[in-house]
Amino acid sequence: MPYVKIELTREGVTREQKQQLIAGVTNLISDILGKDPNLTHIVLQEIELDDWGFAGEQVSILREKGITAQKNNS
Amino acid sequence: MPYVKIELTREGVTREQKQQLIAGVTNLISDILGKDPNLTHIVLQEIELDDWGFAGEQVSILREKGITAQKNNS
Amino acid sequence: MPYVKIELTREGVTREQKQQLIAGVTNLISDILGKDPNLTHIVLQEIELDDWGFAGEQVSILREKGITAQKNNS
Amino acid sequence: MPYVKIELTREGVTREQKQQLIAGVTNLISDILGKDPNLTHIVLQEIELDDWGFAGEQVSILREKGITAQKNNS
Amino acid sequence: MPYVKIELTREGVTREQKQQLIAGVTNLISDILGKDPNLTHIVLQEIELDDWGFAGEQVSILREKGITAQKNNS
Amino acid sequence: MPYVKIELTREGVTREQKQQLIAGVTNLISDILGKDPNLTHIVLQEIELDDWGFAGEQVSILREKGITAQKNNS
Repeated sequence: MPYVKIELTREGVTREQKQQLIAGVTNLISDILGKDPNLTHIVLQEIELDDWGFAGEQVSILREKGITAQKNNS
Repeated sequence: MPYVKIELTREGVTREQKQQLIAGVTNLISDILGKDPNLTHIVLQEIELDDWGFAGEQVSILREKGITAQKNNS
Repeated sequence: MPYVKIELTREGVTREQKQQLIAGVTNLISDILGKDPNLTHIVLQEIELDDWGFAGEQVSILREKGITAQKNNS
Repeated sequence: MPYVKIELTREGVTREQKQQLIAGVTNLISDILGKDPNLTHIVLQEIELDDWGFAGEQVSILREKGITAQKNNS
Repeated sequence: MPYVKIELTREGVTREQKQQLIAGVTNLISDILGKDPNLTHIVLQEIELDDWGFAGEQVSILREKGITAQKNNS
Repeated sequence: MPYVKIELTREGVTREQKQQLIAGVTNLISDILGKDPNLTHIVLQEIELDDWGFAGEQVSILREKGITAQKNNS
């Protein structure tokens, strides 16, 4: 009986990415714990950038300063 | 001091239904646990169908397939 | 697809009271919203009195002062 | 590694007030617990007045009756 | 800035399974959304069987009846 | 009507520190938003180090490697 809540900043996540997250996390829980997917519920919640604080700053302000949450691909 | 969070898919829940849920859950907690209703807070959160995953699928996709969450009334 | 979280102070809630809460809230959601109970999950979380704050005070301290969360039965 | 969720009714909280809450709570956690602010995430969630229940009533109805959540300044 | 909460029934999940869940979900979020893993926090919460309700029943009672959450391997 | 949840790793937080957090956050919300403290509830939840994941690793493993969440005081 797992319930999963994923909170992430609202920054252009697509419907396809959401579906990939839902399928991926459900599969992980099924593979690792053997749980029936019919008992796994996953809820995504997108948070406005003004409403997420990191290191004492709103993410909206961090983004204005050019600070992102993307991993370094260089 | 109870706090209750009810998450449900955004599928046309009316203001009256929300009020019934709030009154009903508050009464249950008062009746079963004897808690003062002035200390009971209830928060409802409606979730978009793209953001709720069940059995590895977005609920929006399940609904397109004709699969509902309604109990069988037949 | 409802998910319900009930947080309450750890003050002697019995297994029977928990079962009554679970059955009662599930029935309410079924009656008011017509939701299939097989899609309703309810999670109870008991919180230690040192870990719940109300009006700026730990509930453990409020209880030491004789302040309870019980409704007035007089 | 603290994570903080602040849920409050949607009643005109400004961007500046949100920033003050984020900075203030992050500083408190840093001062009291010595936690690195780079590991502190704070999420604000504004709740519609129809979706918050207190004492068995929707806050939207309480507000129509003139009952507010403001402290008494008289 | 993702935060993930995974709630599951307390039924013998091992430290290794927890580590696999944490690594797996972090990798999924990094792969699908490109998020820096240093900004991803995951919290697991094991729930006692008396405290999880499904279909109106405590999971502890469902287990006594021989009903499990395991997928069918036959 | 604010509700605040503070999740932090279980690493020796004292009762006094909890009381300081509860009083401090309640005061912040009262000062910044003008909310009546009698409507502010704060719940602390300590998470075992095996149950908190950061950067894809259990915090228990990060601590074994000497990586802490403390700010640099040098």
